[in-house]
Amino acid sequence: MRKKIGRQTYKFEKRICIRDTRSIAGPIESQGPLKSYFHETFEDDLLGQDSFEKAEHQMCLKNILSLLEANQLNETDIDIYIGGDLLNQIITTNLTARDLKIPYWGLYNACSTFVEAIQAAAVLLDGDFINRAVISTASHFSTAERQYRFPLELGTQSPPSAQRTVTGSGAMILEKSCLEGPFVTHMTIGKVMDFEQSDPNDMGSAMAIAACDTIMTHLEDLDVNVEDYDLIVTGDLGEVGYNITKDFLRKKGLNIENRYKDCGMLVYDIINQDVMCGGSGAGCSSTVFTSYFYNKLKNKELNKILFVATGALLSPVSTGQKENIPCIAHAVTIENSK
Amino acid sequence: MRKKIGRQTYKFEKRICIRDTRSIAGPIESQGPLKSYFHETFEDDLLGQDSFEKAEHQMCLKNILSLLEANQLNETDIDIYIGGDLLNQIITTNLTARDLKIPYWGLYNACSTFVEAIQAAAVLLDGDFINRAVISTASHFSTAERQYRFPLELGTQSPPSAQRTVTGSGAMILEKSCLEGPFVTHMTIGKVMDFEQSDPNDMGSAMAIAACDTIMTHLEDLDVNVEDYDLIVTGDLGEVGYNITKDFLRKKGLNIENRYKDCGMLVYDIINQDVMCGGSGAGCSSTVFTSYFYNKLKNKELNKILFVATGALLSPVSTGQKENIPCIAHAVTIENSK
Repeated sequence: MRKKIGRQTYKFEKRICIRDTRSIAGPIESQGPLKSYFHETFEDDLLGQDSFEKAEHQMCLKNILSLLEANQLNETDIDIYIGGDLLNQIITTNLTARDLKIPYWGLYNACSTFVEAIQAAAVLLDGDFINRAVISTASHFSTAERQYRFPLELGTQSPPSAQRTVTGSGAMILEKSCLEGPFVTHMTIGKVMDFEQSDPNDMGSAMAIAACDTIMTHLEDLDVNVEDYDLIVTGDLGEVGYNITKDFLRKKGLNIENRYKDCGMLVYDIINQDVMCGGSGAGCSSTVFTSYFYNKLKNKELNKILFVATGALLSPVSTGQKENIPCIAHAVTIENSK
Repeated sequence: MRKKIGRQTYKFEKRICIRDTRSIAGPIESQGPLKSYFHETFEDDLLGQDSFEKAEHQMCLKNILSLLEANQLNETDIDIYIGGDLLNQIITTNLTARDLKIPYWGLYNACSTFVEAIQAAAVLLDGDFINRAVISTASHFSTAERQYRFPLELGTQSPPSAQRTVTGSGAMILEKSCLEGPFVTHMTIGKVMDFEQSDPNDMGSAMAIAACDTIMTHLEDLDVNVEDYDLIVTGDLGEVGYNITKDFLRKKGLNIENRYKDCGMLVYDIINQDVMCGGSGAGCSSTVFTSYFYNKLKNKELNKILFVATGALLSPVSTGQKENIPCIAHAVTIENSK
């Protein structure tokens, strides 16, 4: 059977399943609508550490150790750990990999890293290299603010098109030859798009075009319709990017409105919480998927979703040098039957 | 056939070959001993751009476009582009991916990213996902200095244990079902090690232990000897890390001295060029492999090498917060027969 279908989409042959997931979320996230779905929440966003960066590392590590413990697995039962985060040199994930002592691939595609990691793990499983992988991504509001924007102490105001970086982490165990789903059945590897947008306070607009491109390519490559999915889920477009995506696809003849959700809009109560147009960050799609969507798939409220994580591949230096924001979106199909 | 052998090593089933390579190197590198091996060199380290970051992007892109042209391939002939670099948010590779418009996975494992990319491409090829991948890594002395250390204008002195970041980029095309080698036959995925070393001016010492761990694991997993390889090649340990690796392995009963080279020592004339203890950077192992070692493999002076790229997974923030430097080494076996 041919695994590659069309230009960017691939079908997995093996029964690759998500054995279990785990999410951890910070103080603002745990006041939001997904409160009851998170496996663990915390009030002190320093997690007892003396810096936010150290807190992010502890959050990521703690979440994975809890996932392994809940599944009665040791580090040596895992063939590879794959992940990334938003901090320079993905230091959160590097330090977590050091503590776990599991063979490690570090990835970086900004907020789309979670789906990139699912893809890499599924490829290793489907190709008969490994039997079990753990993946994770993480982000923290306070580390992202000071790295990408301004020191928190400045009290800088954000425009309404900006997004709040999610403080949280999501992890999952992927295995093969499973009896039970949800299964990862297809992937679409994204291309980097440039919408000639250079405002880091409006990443939703920049990322929307990448999301549209990947969704259209996926449907076209497989010759399927929007109606074949219970839901199309984007990672962190926020309200601005959500509306652009919906409107752009409608003009292309695709009406996704009734079956389209964005993790960045679900993670907060956008009207009552002070979060501008929604959540973002490498921890946004991973925290929401591993809690809310995994739950809905497990209890069969949802049976087939297209999960499209979006990433704004900017760096503060490139923004300062007047580069546009290159964006990417990676997709995987996750379904209960295989 | 079982692909996984031991804890961290895998054997590729298919005939995965390096179809071609291309290297580009900067002014200091092209005065060094590998001058005649580089495919292209340049004198102006700004490459006509108005910043070193823009120059690094152009260098990486130009090298890949030349590689495609030399092989009469278009961007649409390539299934995936995989790569990374040392700049924050791997912006050089992101911008290159934008220009190439090829489906893209961004990776980050510091200076070991080149071998991580060979591994990811080989897994996609061996698993029958793709037929052809392009990979690259790049680094630039002047962008790395100002990001990791100090502004060049300060004229800061480096201690003898420091290394000079290579200005250069290496790229290769990987394919499967080839008639001719060199072939990528095995990979060993590294674990993150911590040698409790926190001095960013002595990364060779920090990385040496990761190199030793991966070399020992590789030999043990496959139950082979040092003598089964024409050469063991590390990525960028420099003279300090080279000696630690050699001495540490000798104490473990492995005498690699007569068949051990380090790309960081080969790329410069350490005695006569002002480069401290050698070269480093994501462009070090990739530039040296794609020029010098690919040439030696092609003309059969070498027939089987273990290529071990080493990465220091630090960030300036983690160094400031007194974290040790976590390190990793990934290995691939490259040989002419399969």
